[in-house]
Amino acid sequence: MSNILTSRKQDYAQWYNDLVIKGGLAEYSAVRGCMVIKPYGFALWENMRDQLDRMFKETGHQNAYFPIFIPKSFLSKEAAHVDGFAKECAVVTHYRLKNDPNGNGVIVDPEAKLEEELIVRPTSETIIWHSYKNWIQSYRDLPILVNQWANVVRWEMRTRLFLRTAEFLWQEGHTAHATKQEAIDETRQMLDVYATFVEEYMALPVIKGVKTESERFAGAEDTYCIEALMQDGKALQAGTSHFLGQNFAKAFDVKFADKDNNMEYVWATSWGVSTRLIGALIMAHSDDEGLVLPPRIAPLQVVIVPIYNKDEATTQKINDKAAEIVKELKAKGIRVKFDDDDTRRPGWKFAEYELRGVPVRITLGARDMDNNIAEVARRDTREKESIALDKVVEQAEQLLEDIQMNLYHKALTFRNENTTRVDSWDQFVSVLNDKGGFVAAHWDGTAETEDKIKEMTKATIRCIPLDSVQEEGACVLTGKPSKQRVLFAKAY
Amino acid sequence: MSNILTSRKQDYAQWYNDLVIKGGLAEYSAVRGCMVIKPYGFALWENMRDQLDRMFKETGHQNAYFPIFIPKSFLSKEAAHVDGFAKECAVVTHYRLKNDPNGNGVIVDPEAKLEEELIVRPTSETIIWHSYKNWIQSYRDLPILVNQWANVVRWEMRTRLFLRTAEFLWQEGHTAHATKQEAIDETRQMLDVYATFVEEYMALPVIKGVKTESERFAGAEDTYCIEALMQDGKALQAGTSHFLGQNFAKAFDVKFADKDNNMEYVWATSWGVSTRLIGALIMAHSDDEGLVLPPRIAPLQVVIVPIYNKDEATTQKINDKAAEIVKELKAKGIRVKFDDDDTRRPGWKFAEYELRGVPVRITLGARDMDNNIAEVARRDTREKESIALDKVVEQAEQLLEDIQMNLYHKALTFRNENTTRVDSWDQFVSVLNDKGGFVAAHWDGTAETEDKIKEMTKATIRCIPLDSVQEEGACVLTGKPSKQRVLFAKAY
Repeated sequence: MSNILTSRKQDYAQWYNDLVIKGGLAEYSAVRGCMVIKPYGFALWENMRDQLDRMFKETGHQNAYFPIFIPKSFLSKEAAHVDGFAKECAVVTHYRLKNDPNGNGVIVDPEAKLEEELIVRPTSETIIWHSYKNWIQSYRDLPILVNQWANVVRWEMRTRLFLRTAEFLWQEGHTAHATKQEAIDETRQMLDVYATFVEEYMALPVIKGVKTESERFAGAEDTYCIEALMQDGKALQAGTSHFLGQNFAKAFDVKFADKDNNMEYVWATSWGVSTRLIGALIMAHSDDEGLVLPPRIAPLQVVIVPIYNKDEATTQKINDKAAEIVKELKAKGIRVKFDDDDTRRPGWKFAEYELRGVPVRITLGARDMDNNIAEVARRDTREKESIALDKVVEQAEQLLEDIQMNLYHKALTFRNENTTRVDSWDQFVSVLNDKGGFVAAHWDGTAETEDKIKEMTKATIRCIPLDSVQEEGACVLTGKPSKQRVLFAKAY
Repeated sequence: MSNILTSRKQDYAQWYNDLVIKGGLAEYSAVRGCMVIKPYGFALWENMRDQLDRMFKETGHQNAYFPIFIPKSFLSKEAAHVDGFAKECAVVTHYRLKNDPNGNGVIVDPEAKLEEELIVRPTSETIIWHSYKNWIQSYRDLPILVNQWANVVRWEMRTRLFLRTAEFLWQEGHTAHATKQEAIDETRQMLDVYATFVEEYMALPVIKGVKTESERFAGAEDTYCIEALMQDGKALQAGTSHFLGQNFAKAFDVKFADKDNNMEYVWATSWGVSTRLIGALIMAHSDDEGLVLPPRIAPLQVVIVPIYNKDEATTQKINDKAAEIVKELKAKGIRVKFDDDDTRRPGWKFAEYELRGVPVRITLGARDMDNNIAEVARRDTREKESIALDKVVEQAEQLLEDIQMNLYHKALTFRNENTTRVDSWDQFVSVLNDKGGFVAAHWDGTAETEDKIKEMTKATIRCIPLDSVQEEGACVLTGKPSKQRVLFAKAY
C-alpha cells in the first residue's frame, strides 16, 4: 500500500490531499475552490449531520430555511459584521443570460442588471434577523430556537478540500431570547453540544474556550469555541458558538414587549459547525494506509470479504454464513456489507477497505470454514485474530466499541503529550518550531502582543480555556502581568 | 374562524396564500421571489425528504454534493439544455466587495471581476456530468446512482410561495448506465418511487405519464411525470423523471470501456421533486379552516389540549393522564404534543391546531375526567367523539390510519369526478371553462395543434398517460386521426 498515499512524515499536507481524493471523499470541481463531496464523503457527513440534528432537536431547536441571497446593504447594517464578511463574497449582479449575437454560446444580458446586488450568503445573521423582526412582537414569541442546514460561500484565495473551500456545507443556529442570561446559557449549551458530539462521536478530544477579542466572530460580544489538535501538531477550530448580545437586534430593530409591556431589544446567539469537521476527523485519526474512522460515524462499520476456492459447496457455505452474519449485525443496527464482487480479488478489497477506514473486517476463507473460524481484523491497530464463527458477531460488536474508545484515548494521549506549559519566550519559540502542539502560556491581554506573537511565530491564541486556572504570571513576550494561561498554537 | 382565511370559493389563490402564511409554513423574504421556509413548513419538508431519502436508498442510491456554481460555458454544452436553462438565472460576476470610498456601506470591487461568470445552478446536469467524466472509465464504474439534496435558483418573474419561487429546495437524481435499457428502467423505477410516495404518504393520487416533446425537459429524450389534480380543478406536475439518452455523455465526452474493451457513451437519467410538493399537498387537502395534513407526514400527529377548572386535584389528574397518553403514543412512534401553555385559552388552541392541520386532537376536560372520558376530534371531517379514557390511545392510532386513507380516497373521488372524456371542441372548451379538471381527449400528435390549443384555452397536455388505452379517434381541434387520448388541463 505504501505507494498509494504519500506518508505523513514525508509530506503531511500531500498525505491529507491524497487521502481525501483516493479515499473517495471529495475532489475539486470545475469551479475554482469549490469541491464535489463524493458519495463516501457525503455518507460520513450524513452520519455527522443526523447525530447533530438529533442533539439540536433534543435541546429544543427546530430547523428552518432562509434565502441563499443577501441584499448587499444588509451586510453593512451591523458595524462589526460588515468588516468581517463583506469582503470575499460571490456577488450576483445580473438575472438573465441571452444568446451571444456572435453565436458563441450565451452572454450576460446587460439589460438584466439587478438594482441592488445580491451576495451569496457567507453566514445568515443579517437575512435571518430581518425575518425575526416580523416574527417577534412579544415575550410570548421568545425564545426562537432555529437552526438551518445550508451551503455558504466565502471566496477563499487558498483552498484545501474540506478545510477551506469557497462553498461549504454547514449548520447555523440562530436564536433569540428575552434575557441576556438566557442567551449566554444557550451559547454555552450549544458549545457543550458540539464538544459532546466531537468527543463522543468523532472520538476527538476538544478544549472548550473563549476567543480573544481579535479572533471573535464579526458582530459577536463573545465567541466560544472548541479546539482540537491534529497529528501534525496544528490546532483546528472545530466549532464556534457566539453570544451576539443585542447587536443584530439593534441593527435590524428587533424589539419585544415584555410582560410589563416595555419594549426591549432581543438577545441573540448563533453557532455553527461545517464540513470542515470532516477534515478534522481525517487529520486526527488516519494513517499512512488510509482513513481510520470512528465506528459511530463510519458509513460502513463492518465489511465481510470472502475468499473462495474452486469448490462450489464451500462457496455456498461461505455465502450462507455471510448472509447469517449480515442479518445478525443488521439486527443490532450495525452498518455492514458483504462484498462478493467477483471482479475484484481479496487483496484488492483488503487494501480498499483499509484505505476507506472501515473499522472491522471479517474474512471468510474457504480453508477457515472447515475449522469453523473466521479472521477478524480491526482497522485502528491493524490487528487480526482468528475467531470461532459463532463468536464473530459478538466480537465485531465489541470491537466497534473498543475502536471508538481507543481512537479517543489515543487522540487524548497525543494531545496531552503535545500540550506544553511554557514560561519563557525562547522556550515558546522552540516548542512551537520543534514540537508543535498547544502551548499554554501567559499573555498580557492586549491585542498588540497577540498580533506581535502571531507575526513572529505564526501562532495564534486558540482560546482562553474555560477551565483554565487563575494563576499569577508574566506575559511570555512582554513580561507584563497576567492572571491565567491561554492556549497558543499554529492552526488550520 | 371564518375571518382568519379567505374562503376557497371567494378567492382560491388568496386562500392558498393566507394559509401558507397564517399556517406558519413560509413567507416572502427581503429578496425578490425568495421564500423563508418557517419551522412548521420545514418540519413538513423534513418528513417528506426523509421518507423519499429512505426510498432512494432502498433502490440503491447514494447522496453526494456538487457545487452550487456552474461555469457559464457549461450551460451551452448540451444544445437543447441551453435553451431551457440558460435564461433567467442568477449570475455571479464578481468575488469581492469593498468599502465605498464615499462612506456609503460597501460596493462591488470592479477589480474583482470573474474571468468567466458563474451561474447559480438552476439544475445540475452539466456540473455533474463534468465530474462523471472523471468517475467513469470502465463498465466496472457503472451504474452510478447518485442523488443530491440542494437549493436551486431560477429567476421567476411571477412567484407564489412553494409553487414557484426564485430559490427552492429539491432533490435531483443523476444516474449513469452502461445500457439504454438500464437507463430507461431507472427512469421508470424513479417515476414509480415518486408515485408511491405521493400516493401513500401525501395521500394524493397521481397520473403517471410521459410528456409531449414540447413539454420535455431541456436535454431529455423522454420526460416522465406524475400529475395531480388540485381542488380548484387545476393540474400540478408533482415530479419528473427524465431519460436523457446519451445527450449529456456526448456533451461532456463521457465514455466507458465495456467488457470487450469497446469505448461507448454512457446512458443517463435525472429525476427530481421539490418543495413545490408542499404547495400540492396544501392545495389538495386543506379547507377553509386551515391545513389538512396526511398523518404520515404531519409534523405533529396528535395534540392534547387540557381544559382545566380551578380545582388543583383535577388539574393534576389531567396532567397525569396527559403524560400517560403522551408516553403511550410516543412508544408507538406517534408524534404527539401536550399543550399546557397557560398563556393561551383552549378555544385559541383549538383554532390554532385546526389551522395547522394536526390530524387528531384529544381534549382532556375537567368535567370529562370524572366520567373517565375524553373528546377525540379528527381534523379531516371535523367529527368529535367521546371516548373512554382507556381507549383514547387506540382510537387516536386508528384515526391516524383512517384519516390517511380518507384523504386519499376523497382526493381520488374528486379527481375521478373531475376527469372528463371529451370528443368535440365545443365540449372541450366548455368543460375547461366551466368544470375544470383533467380533460381526456384525442390529439393529432403535432406540436402545432398543442400550441394552438394552449393559446386558445390555456390548457396544456399534462401527459400521455402510461396506462392509456389505444383507441381510434379524431383530434379534438383538427379532426385528424389519433390513436389514444391524452390528458389536458390548466395547470400550476
